[in-house]
Amino acid sequence: MSEDILVSEVGPRDGLQSISAIMPTAAKKSWIAAESAAGVREIEVGSFVPAKLLPQLADTAEIVAFAKTIPGLTVAVLVPNRRGADDAIAAGADKITLPLSVSESHSLANLRRTHDQVIEDAAGIAAAIAALPEGSRPHFEGSLSTVFGCTIEGSIPETQILDLAERLMAAGCDEVGLSDTTGYADPKAVRDMVKAVRGAVGDDAVTGIHLHNTRGLGLANVLAALEAGLDTVDSSLGGIGGCPFAPGASGNIVTEDLVFMLQAMGLKTGIDLDKLIAVRDIVRGALPDEELYGFTPDAGLPLGFRGETDRANLETVT
Amino acid sequence: MSEDILVSEVGPRDGLQSISAIMPTAAKKSWIAAESAAGVREIEVGSFVPAKLLPQLADTAEIVAFAKTIPGLTVAVLVPNRRGADDAIAAGADKITLPLSVSESHSLANLRRTHDQVIEDAAGIAAAIAALPEGSRPHFEGSLSTVFGCTIEGSIPETQILDLAERLMAAGCDEVGLSDTTGYADPKAVRDMVKAVRGAVGDDAVTGIHLHNTRGLGLANVLAALEAGLDTVDSSLGGIGGCPFAPGASGNIVTEDLVFMLQAMGLKTGIDLDKLIAVRDIVRGALPDEELYGFTPDAGLPLGFRGETDRANLETVT
Repeated sequence: MSEDILVSEVGPRDGLQSISAIMPTAAKKSWIAAESAAGVREIEVGSFVPAKLLPQLADTAEIVAFAKTIPGLTVAVLVPNRRGADDAIAAGADKITLPLSVSESHSLANLRRTHDQVIEDAAGIAAAIAALPEGSRPHFEGSLSTVFGCTIEGSIPETQILDLAERLMAAGCDEVGLSDTTGYADPKAVRDMVKAVRGAVGDDAVTGIHLHNTRGLGLANVLAALEAGLDTVDSSLGGIGGCPFAPGASGNIVTEDLVFMLQAMGLKTGIDLDKLIAVRDIVRGALPDEELYGFTPDAGLPLGFRGETDRANLETVT
Repeated sequence: MSEDILVSEVGPRDGLQSISAIMPTAAKKSWIAAESAAGVREIEVGSFVPAKLLPQLADTAEIVAFAKTIPGLTVAVLVPNRRGADDAIAAGADKITLPLSVSESHSLANLRRTHDQVIEDAAGIAAAIAALPEGSRPHFEGSLSTVFGCTIEGSIPETQILDLAERLMAAGCDEVGLSDTTGYADPKAVRDMVKAVRGAVGDDAVTGIHLHNTRGLGLANVLAALEAGLDTVDSSLGGIGGCPFAPGASGNIVTEDLVFMLQAMGLKTGIDLDKLIAVRDIVRGALPDEELYGFTPDAGLPLGFRGETDRANLETVT
């Protein structure tokens, strides 16, 4: 198991796109700045999609420009296609993720794209990145979504998943991600899938996972992913994105609980948990009608918990 | 990892003692009967404590007598001391658990008992059980509580924990349990503690664990416990017992989510998940003001999820 874990905050993208309220641009900037100051080193700050489709993320270019001014922060964005990737490159994003749903029915229903079309996009994006001057090329991830099962097709044959992983890498992706879009994953499935995809495209090409907490297994699945060798985990501050089991809601893993687990296990995140928990106030202030999830902020930290800073004087509130 | 996992339902004891509402005896019987009919093989049905202290559990003797009529059900009870154990033996309980807080401050604060006094009780209870005719002797567990840390003392030295485990076994316990009373556990601590206590008293003497979900790590900790070789996990239907982080509340692991995780991993529980989820209606009907927890009941089961019965035709509701 890796000692250093990268917690990749996806709330400003996956969280905000799943709720109807629109967070003001200034609040997004405060959120990103404060969470970065708490030690979070990678934040997915938005998605380059048409504003008509996701007005919540219409300010993504401005947010990327702001986030780029924060030293040491990896500014990640999601793109649905080549056009979004061009916008992301123009904005100067450090990391670009293109999702590919391993369920073709899901891909057609959500993005109206066949597998071949998405792979073609991936190749075009990789070529556009390769044409950039060295040192200014964003990291390019192809993310296998619905990889633990799909609400239309159920489970997807492993051979099909591995074939798509290989095609993404052949198209020029730097890395292949795994995404439990539907919250179907369990610890055994996570372990098996990481092993299989790493076997197909190499350990270095599979380092991160995006899990949901739809059925309460989020952190157990994280544990399985870490044990399988991954070192990058997506999560959302306050689990923002709405009720985990509401239709269309993401049910993201709560960053605060994830960081508590990692630090309690003695793993390094570089994050100050107290400062991280304080960021909730910004999100709550900007989205007063949204429920924030997470147990650790309310339970408090265990007596004597040291985390990565000296917490010897902290007492639990329970 | 064991293929067969015993889910030990503790809601009628640990859940009900943590809330102020008193569940009518008839409702408790319906709950226990229905959950047993769903395939749950062990239920902690109450605690033999003075009715003045815990009026919620004043009917424990009647509940034990009823539960004993259910074929195949292991009827478990908690006892705080020798007198409670005598009542439990007289009632015919199949399993008796005596907690021993490894933090002596906690033991004194909660039960006004020193470690020596609890060990003396354990020896007396073991002798009383040994005097029973063969075939009618309840299984006797000494449960190490606050084993992952205490809100008064913080973390407890491992040597002290192992010494207490050995003394409980020497006093005549059949088994030593581990209990995360304070919700301080993390997966690494669980693994380390199981290994250490098993090392001290033998693998056969340590099979079960009682975890809380106070900081959201409940199921991740279960996973670590299973990987460390345990095969018995306590949980509470609907996580009953109140808000996980409220003072005094137990924040139990939710039985429904636990069973979903185990079945999704291909482990055997003998439980029908649909029937189990239906038991929530009984609890909700009897405790209309209590919130029921759990993600799986609301999210529904994954498309194609087979569990331990044929679920091929079930569709998720998300």
